[in-house]
Order: sequence, then C-alpha cells, then structure tokens
Amino acid sequence: MNSAISPADFGNMTDIVVFLMEVDKLKNVERRTRLLNHGRHENSAEHSWHFALAALSLAPFASEEVDIHRVIKMALLHDIVEIDVGDVLVYDLAAREAIALKEAQAAKRLFGLLPAPQNEQFLTLWHEYEAGITADAKFAGALDRVLPILLNLHNEGQSWRENNITLQQVLSRNAKVGETLPELWQHVVTQLHAAHEKGWLR
Amino acid sequence: MNSAISPADFGNMTDIVVFLMEVDKLKNVERRTRLLNHGRHENSAEHSWHFALAALSLAPFASEEVDIHRVIKMALLHDIVEIDVGDVLVYDLAAREAIALKEAQAAKRLFGLLPAPQNEQFLTLWHEYEAGITADAKFAGALDRVLPILLNLHNEGQSWRENNITLQQVLSRNAKVGETLPELWQHVVTQLHAAHEKGWLR
Repeated sequence: MNSAISPADFGNMTDIVVFLMEVDKLKNVERRTRLLNHGRHENSAEHSWHFALAALSLAPFASEEVDIHRVIKMALLHDIVEIDVGDVLVYDLAAREAIALKEAQAAKRLFGLLPAPQNEQFLTLWHEYEAGITADAKFAGALDRVLPILLNLHNEGQSWRENNITLQQVLSRNAKVGETLPELWQHVVTQLHAAHEKGWLR
Repeated sequence: MNSAISPADFGNMTDIVVFLMEVDKLKNVERRTRLLNHGRHENSAEHSWHFALAALSLAPFASEEVDIHRVIKMALLHDIVEIDVGDVLVYDLAAREAIALKEAQAAKRLFGLLPAPQNEQFLTLWHEYEAGITADAKFAGALDRVLPILLNLHNEGQSWRENNITLQQVLSRNAKVGETLPELWQHVVTQLHAAHEKGWLR
C-alpha cells in the first residue's frame, strides 16, 4: 500500500523529506471547481493554499476563541488524505459517508510517514478538523465550504451547473457557515438567490 | 492596471473577497519545476502550500528565535506578487534584479486590495521576507530555496537539466540554506555531488 518514494539520505530529516515528496501528489488531485475565467479544474494543493490564505485574511472576523494559527495548520493538512482517496463532492452525501473510513486510514498512512512528534500532532489535528466540534475546526470548516461558493459566485456557477446542484442543496449543506461567519453568510445567501435567478443554480 | 474582478456585495468583507478572488490567479503562474514523476509544471499557488507545509514539518529543526507561524504566513504570501510579474528563475540574477521594483509595485497593488490592518500587515511581512534579514525571513527563504532542490533530487534533476544549471550555481546560490538548516544542507550537498555524477547537473 505504501507508494512513497524510496528515501535518499537526509539524516534526521529523511522521514520528513519522504513525507514532503509524497504529498507532492496532492497537486494532482482534481476538485470540481475550476479556476476563475473558466480555466482548468482546481487541484487540492492550491485549494489548500487558498483556504489557508482565506483564514489569514478573515482572521479579524473570527470569534475570540479561534486560534488562527491552528486553523491555518488545519487548512494545510485537511486534504492530504485525498492523495489516497481522491476528492468527493460535498453534495454527494452517500459517497462522502462511504469514504470516511478510507480517509482515516489514509491519514494514518500519510501522517505516519513523519517522525514523532509531528506524526501524532498532524493526525490529531486532522481528526479534530474532521470532527468539526471545536471553535478552530468550525471556523476552518466554514472557510473550506465558503471558498468554492465564492468561486462559483464569480464563475457563473460553473461547478453547480456542471453537477446539477440546487439552491436548496447549497443552502442546507452549508448552513453551518452562518454559525461561524454570520455576516459573510448573510451576504452569501443574498448572492445565492441572485445566482439562482440567473440560472447558475437549479 | 487594476485587473481585479468587479466586486459583488459582501458587506464589510467585500474587499477581502475581492482580494481572495484576485489571488486565484496565482494558480496560473508556472514555475520551472515539474511535479514528481515528470508531470506538468508546478504553479506558484501549490508551491506556496508545499512551502508552508515544509515549514510546519521542519519546525522542530528551526532555531529558537524562529516564530514558525510568521514563517508560514510568509510562505502563504511570498509569491503573490508573481500574479503581476511572473516567476523568474532563481539562477537568472540579471532578470531577478530587473524585476525587484516591479515586485514591490505588485505587492502594493495586491495587498492594497485588502482593508486595514491586513493591507499593511501583509505588505510589511512580504518586505521582511524579501529583505531576508530577520530569523523568520532567513528560515522562510531557506525553505523556499531547498524545496525545488529536493524536487530536482527526486526528479532526475528535471529543471536543472532543462535550464542547463551547474553544480556550482546550485551550491553558491543556495549556500545560505546551510546557515539556517545546516544539518539538512550537509546532506543536500552530498546528494548534489551524486546528482552531478549522474549527469543531472552540469
């Protein structure tokens, strides 16, 4: 199962270099969203960068309990499991449930490439993000959800139209963004209704 | 000169959304390195993610003065200027000198899309990174330099061969990595000599 590159010798840092070369593969994992101006599909590595930068930019709007540095770490790590299991559309609930166990195995394999203490630290942070219970995980989850919505709102609803998504799906699957970023969500909802009227969403 | 997307209304967050949609363009800026296994060229957005993740992974090897959160922020911001000026090869000294002023103008335009206080914070952090004097900027600069070297060492010297780079160029242009990450650099130098013998470097 382990398809990591055979290691060259970098002393105490050999395992970290193996991990960094292995995660290069995330640049090959395609998402449904395309770059603005109807470009190619976005990949999960550049999405992770965009997500971390969104966390940094929107930090002043986070609640006081949020540690933005932990949110940025979650952004950097959250999609690495897709190297083994691929990206699954947020609106495909059955498929997302089906891969949950595989994602946990992927997290164990990939973060397990690292030495202690990072292996456990990264794995624990990934599980915290996935569980979505802590303030940090909620803020991170909201950013991960709102970014493709913002891209779609600036791209004529590209991935909504290509995947036949309805206004009700977007509103219900992403309602939790409103709990964490209420002011942003209020404006997003207005824009979503306008997008629906323009035919970008069913 | 301002080619930002015309803003939809997101209330107090409108300017931040404009910035986040504008920086989507970094996903289209090509670097000289290719993905491992001789894939397509890497882009500067996914490289920025890889750089931030390298900072997080190599944090235990940073000196005590390094604030890894600031290093990660530098990684997320460091290449955004390339949206306006493109990526210039680290070994092309004349071209790099020629674009320094343009990069500073690009930083002013792009970070200037943001509201206060992020506009000044991001701009100041980018200038600190570029100057390369503080401990954080030195550590960040070393990671930015060592990543393409590691990729080349796992990719048969792809971008070195494609750009006719010599062992002496790699050693002299990246010697400062050794000041910040001496243990890693020692192993990299051994691997560079081996790469030279294999003909991956002139």
